[in-house]
Amino acid sequence: MSVDGDEIKEIHGPDHPESVGWTKSQKMELFADPDNPLTLEAGWVIGPIESEYETYGKLNDSASNAVLICHALTGDAHAAGWDSNPVGPLREYRKKKPGWWDTMIGPGKAIDTSRFFVICINVLGSCYGSTGPSSVNPETGQPWGLRFPVVTVGDWARVQMELLTRLGIYRLRAVIGGSMGGQIGLEMALAYPDRVRSMAILSAGHRVTTQGLAFNAVGRHAIINDPNFKSGDYYLGPPPLSGLAAARMMAQITYLSEESMGNKFGRRLRGKDSPDFTLTGIEFEMESYLNHQAESFVARYDANSYLYITRAMDYYEAAEKWGSGDLAKTAARIKAKTMVVSFSSDWLFPPELCRELVSAMCLAGCPVSYVNIPSRYGHDAFLVETEAVRRLIRIFLKD
Amino acid sequence: MSVDGDEIKEIHGPDHPESVGWTKSQKMELFADPDNPLTLEAGWVIGPIESEYETYGKLNDSASNAVLICHALTGDAHAAGWDSNPVGPLREYRKKKPGWWDTMIGPGKAIDTSRFFVICINVLGSCYGSTGPSSVNPETGQPWGLRFPVVTVGDWARVQMELLTRLGIYRLRAVIGGSMGGQIGLEMALAYPDRVRSMAILSAGHRVTTQGLAFNAVGRHAIINDPNFKSGDYYLGPPPLSGLAAARMMAQITYLSEESMGNKFGRRLRGKDSPDFTLTGIEFEMESYLNHQAESFVARYDANSYLYITRAMDYYEAAEKWGSGDLAKTAARIKAKTMVVSFSSDWLFPPELCRELVSAMCLAGCPVSYVNIPSRYGHDAFLVETEAVRRLIRIFLKD
Repeated sequence: MSVDGDEIKEIHGPDHPESVGWTKSQKMELFADPDNPLTLEAGWVIGPIESEYETYGKLNDSASNAVLICHALTGDAHAAGWDSNPVGPLREYRKKKPGWWDTMIGPGKAIDTSRFFVICINVLGSCYGSTGPSSVNPETGQPWGLRFPVVTVGDWARVQMELLTRLGIYRLRAVIGGSMGGQIGLEMALAYPDRVRSMAILSAGHRVTTQGLAFNAVGRHAIINDPNFKSGDYYLGPPPLSGLAAARMMAQITYLSEESMGNKFGRRLRGKDSPDFTLTGIEFEMESYLNHQAESFVARYDANSYLYITRAMDYYEAAEKWGSGDLAKTAARIKAKTMVVSFSSDWLFPPELCRELVSAMCLAGCPVSYVNIPSRYGHDAFLVETEAVRRLIRIFLKD
Repeated sequence: MSVDGDEIKEIHGPDHPESVGWTKSQKMELFADPDNPLTLEAGWVIGPIESEYETYGKLNDSASNAVLICHALTGDAHAAGWDSNPVGPLREYRKKKPGWWDTMIGPGKAIDTSRFFVICINVLGSCYGSTGPSSVNPETGQPWGLRFPVVTVGDWARVQMELLTRLGIYRLRAVIGGSMGGQIGLEMALAYPDRVRSMAILSAGHRVTTQGLAFNAVGRHAIINDPNFKSGDYYLGPPPLSGLAAARMMAQITYLSEESMGNKFGRRLRGKDSPDFTLTGIEFEMESYLNHQAESFVARYDANSYLYITRAMDYYEAAEKWGSGDLAKTAARIKAKTMVVSFSSDWLFPPELCRELVSAMCLAGCPVSYVNIPSRYGHDAFLVETEAVRRLIRIFLKD
């Protein structure tokens, strides 16, 4: 998910009364007991693993006010506030920007940290603190690379629930996620129906579209065919930056919409009145934007993690997993009060896909509300349609 | 443009009464007079150049029955019939398939070669017979590579008109083109209003969308960053196949639609009932299809040509060129009786874009008809919605 924040109107500094202020990520070791390692859906067994997470607000005595925020494809646990000790590939990025959903999370904000204990956990397979392909495999002393086991959305739900259990949280007040985070949220509600009181999923669905499968495949193709990729064992040499850049540029197009790109860039040339007639240089603002996005991304993301996480998105099909292909039967498992939000111009998780899920939930008699927000911002809308999303989440979290 | 023909129901062998039969491409040297070389829109001067073309049917005595067919991005002059002497990169491809618009062109077909003299000319910059970056620069004895001048849609119209003049054709009975071919057709009607009696453009517009600009930019990025690219001087070594493959895979997605991909592939696994959980291998039919398309494409196309031709598409903006940005003023130049055809699920040249052009032509008082064909085939629809397109072109060419 792109969080370029171009459309985010206000950025709250750490001293703003509605900011969660300076934050510090934590790590928890999970599945450390050799007798109880984590058996992944694909069959691999792994443990111990580390999960990076952040929390904002206080858990109440009955542990009934926990709200889990699930991040998107390239997101991390730093959902709100300002990182007090930015390290690693996100160092520069985090100096300039607050957490990726800072607009929603804070005291008095829609996800009100004076009421809720908010947790965001980095997914297994990521490069942002949780164990992933760039982590060192303790058995070999080498980075896992492609020897890291294939992870799934179901595994993420399992790991996150384990961490919540360790924090003393049995039942989530709410799980909230956008895009891939919405897939995780849905899976939590399906796999642990008694442990999720309510769920809000935005710009997400029970599966990716065929187009989504295709774009993910091309992104991986670009990475894998970068000569620096070296079957994933590039950690001692130059990483496959140009492949990862191509994947990101393409993905970036799918996060926007023709209307938003047209409004923002159109055919404007980059710093000139007439073209230079160059094949390899930049002519249009649109190109410059994509290049810039890609450069900034490859400096902070690991190509192997991109492979693992897009693959997990591909594999996820809630109806196949829980209802033998029957989405209504699947939905019947859900006990969470649900809100589904789509955005009119989102073509990565289009409104039609969200409505499939909502219809199935209605058929199954689940308490579900659905809003399709008119927006020109495409898939990114869940991050940039701040006002509309705020209003909806406030209502969703009211009771 | 993808011409995979999967949806084309019938293939006429060379002996079929409605086939143009065995064909033979021709080459014409143009701008050979050193005093009158071709000055390109970007300022370069080049000459002589060669243009590959094919013709079907007979030019009548008054030279008034010539129909020019303009090919799309990766197309060629072989629009109909069976290549009698397939050579070069297209050798294998042409053994298996007739010309790219064989469904439309032939005796008795919609573009009836018993009535019309049909010509299709390969664009300057291509790798399919006309002079392009893979041609040898006579001054150096080496392939042009990126030293080949940047060409534009305007240059293509100029070159094609010059070739027509040399064939003794002053006024075209019609120009017909889809996608990039529609851009060329439109430019012919704008640049030579007295020489184009009618024009049919399909799945095309007066410019590419911002999304189109973006996808083209990512495709070029993938090619240019392939280490085999070597600034375009790869002709003596391995070509940048993986970059070109990535560009093609991505482009292929833009030629289809979610509905057509969903119907054709959906989430079906490739030759198995459950996933192998592989990051680098094939899991889904969708991936296999993209890989196959890319493999077949890179075997027959030159990466440098891909750069030149996508760039030309990017640069084209009819209103900027002819009407200081005013599309109605631009349209007022057109004297050709015009038919514009869009397809409901085409998101590369979407119906809205076609309607911009049609509206401007209406405002300018041009004789224009417009049809939006309901189709699930996306941009490829102009090649696969055979029946609908046939009917429309028959009516268009009636008088």
